[in-house]
Amino acid sequence: MTKPRAVYLQSGGPTAVLNASAQGAIETARRLGLSLYAAYDGLAGLLDGRLCDTDAVSDTAIAQLAFMPGGSFGVSRRMIGTYEEAPEDWLRLRDVLAKHDIRYLLINGGNGSLGCAERLVDFEKHTGYKLGVIGIPKTIDNDLVGTDNSPGYGSSAKFLASAMREVGLDMTSMGWGRVFIMETMGRHTGWLAAACAASSRSPQEAPHLLLLPEVPFDQERFLAALDGCLAKYGQCAIAVAEGITGADGRFVAEAKKSETYGHEQLGGAGHWLAQLILRERGISAHVAQVDYLQRAGGHLASATDVRQAYVMGEKAVEWLLAGKTGLMAGIRRLNDHPYCWDVDEVPLSAVGDKEKRLPPEYIGADGFSVTQAFLDYVKPLMEGERIPPFKDGLPDYRPIAWPRV
Amino acid sequence: MTKPRAVYLQSGGPTAVLNASAQGAIETARRLGLSLYAAYDGLAGLLDGRLCDTDAVSDTAIAQLAFMPGGSFGVSRRMIGTYEEAPEDWLRLRDVLAKHDIRYLLINGGNGSLGCAERLVDFEKHTGYKLGVIGIPKTIDNDLVGTDNSPGYGSSAKFLASAMREVGLDMTSMGWGRVFIMETMGRHTGWLAAACAASSRSPQEAPHLLLLPEVPFDQERFLAALDGCLAKYGQCAIAVAEGITGADGRFVAEAKKSETYGHEQLGGAGHWLAQLILRERGISAHVAQVDYLQRAGGHLASATDVRQAYVMGEKAVEWLLAGKTGLMAGIRRLNDHPYCWDVDEVPLSAVGDKEKRLPPEYIGADGFSVTQAFLDYVKPLMEGERIPPFKDGLPDYRPIAWPRV
Repeated sequence: MTKPRAVYLQSGGPTAVLNASAQGAIETARRLGLSLYAAYDGLAGLLDGRLCDTDAVSDTAIAQLAFMPGGSFGVSRRMIGTYEEAPEDWLRLRDVLAKHDIRYLLINGGNGSLGCAERLVDFEKHTGYKLGVIGIPKTIDNDLVGTDNSPGYGSSAKFLASAMREVGLDMTSMGWGRVFIMETMGRHTGWLAAACAASSRSPQEAPHLLLLPEVPFDQERFLAALDGCLAKYGQCAIAVAEGITGADGRFVAEAKKSETYGHEQLGGAGHWLAQLILRERGISAHVAQVDYLQRAGGHLASATDVRQAYVMGEKAVEWLLAGKTGLMAGIRRLNDHPYCWDVDEVPLSAVGDKEKRLPPEYIGADGFSVTQAFLDYVKPLMEGERIPPFKDGLPDYRPIAWPRV
Repeated sequence: MTKPRAVYLQSGGPTAVLNASAQGAIETARRLGLSLYAAYDGLAGLLDGRLCDTDAVSDTAIAQLAFMPGGSFGVSRRMIGTYEEAPEDWLRLRDVLAKHDIRYLLINGGNGSLGCAERLVDFEKHTGYKLGVIGIPKTIDNDLVGTDNSPGYGSSAKFLASAMREVGLDMTSMGWGRVFIMETMGRHTGWLAAACAASSRSPQEAPHLLLLPEVPFDQERFLAALDGCLAKYGQCAIAVAEGITGADGRFVAEAKKSETYGHEQLGGAGHWLAQLILRERGISAHVAQVDYLQRAGGHLASATDVRQAYVMGEKAVEWLLAGKTGLMAGIRRLNDHPYCWDVDEVPLSAVGDKEKRLPPEYIGADGFSVTQAFLDYVKPLMEGERIPPFKDGLPDYRPIAWPRV
């Protein structure tokens, strides 16, 4: 029997559980008799014909993917436009696929990458080459539509909320007047900053204020809220998304652009806020800029998130072999307590290049908090620990050298 | 039988294992029949007579201290000078101690706090009140002399090295040309930044460059090293201590002082470096400023560190009751592999207000790395995991409400 062949690729920024989706796809391909290649470096590698053969790697090595942050095959932000926009990309892709007799494409990525997947559903129409395309969701930002949550988000949420709880204990030790700012990722959405709220079991506990991109920053209201926290709790722990904007819709930290020689450098909202607090209240705030730590924290991955990432990869392969195309595997929530979910067939056309922001019903009336409905939403996604093996005191990740085809 | 009474206090910045020393002291006091009070908020609370009774808290609650970051009793940076400098503090202290018939003092802190302990050894000479004084070491900075390492350091080292390994996988996924900067604590010493090197199992693996306060920053040499990493590895992960200085001995990030309205705000070395790299090489580096996360990471504490912190508290109580005074419990290394250690009686006079920097034999010849001797030193200190209980997906720390005396 000649096995049919698929190619899998990872696209966009890595997460703590992106490789768990790869594991789900690979193990399912083995079970069902599908030959599975993968592209190095996402769409960039696929267009260059740089492929590896996952079949040549041992089951033992594949099992380790459950424990490994990053994107094991390499990722890129290379995208593919419509056929009309970039016919040369489509023809290059056809040549690569035909050369290796690849009939199925699995794109594991966020909204931009899934937009590419959506466009490629019409591959046969434009190139005469039959290709099944399934998307696997992935993003720490949790901004994908069509799925209740995105694999990657739960682990980042768990990392940030755990850090906030731990720093809260540290701050409380130090007594009156401390201000701590934790800057999270989230250019356009506040899902990550909001997740920090899960840390708090009472109003006294950190975080005390959330600054979300969905709520334009208002200096006077913020300072009043800060004063209120200091008066009530003697401290203020703030989670701020990197992408908060002023009333004009511009990133607050963008004023720094001139200092950075014209490069837009996000990730400055925390320090921008610290400067404001120092200027207006004379308090030196501590700033943690969590940066890549929040998306690479494999040692603190959510077991729920790992499981969901795996199942998304598994279903994608099952669907390809069942002849389905143009779908993304989505997560459908069945119940909050106990948390139950299943997998939904979501048309890629409903997902690609769209963005899901925090809905108003998840944001507290004061604009600096979240509602119980959000906490009910987010808490199950952090549930369960999946501790990697440790060696010499550190997580024992063993990168896989994928054999080039 | 009337139990003799001691008072315990936590002083300076918290660590992930400061409370494990408290646990060691409390459990040992119970075993040996010592009544143990503790001061709220370190020396500040002691001088105010704000005390709690640890005896009134259940064994079950005390056992949780092994898992809890921060300083459970509260800390402060309040110090006590010599009798000649501050006789009123000494007399206030005598009144507090006499009121509660406290005959022993346990100070759990870093070099400044242990300097106070050293001065108070002469308490009877100046005040006529007999007082036994023992110091318990604590600092993530690892800058205490008289002990092979300081409780608190191993856990911070483990947190930082784990984060560096995880971010290294994330960076490697993203392909050529990435620069990542992780700013660690360490105002005057590079122990924490250097610990990141334990993450790397081969020259390709992060971190690629260490910037230590012990090596004055030289822009040309740094840029040459950066260029070398990009050429050799296609990426550069840098661990930089907050307190790196230029050839003039000033903190590199201090130039910002004017922008911060005269307040000296450390913690800017990472961003300062990113600006330099952007200006000189046109590369936008990512910056993680780990801040309090690195000292509060109870979920990733080193089991070795927890154990050592506990034993330091235990020995301190044993020594007090044996009539010893003027000592700090120190860690003496007996062997690297397997790591063996015992407890040393260190005169407080050899410890207080001194500072241990990275010795030259631990710093690589290029000034951007560490030697094998340092790796042999640091790795055992990170060894072993001590995972706290989790609830609802987060570490289940239960702060103790200590009953006021």
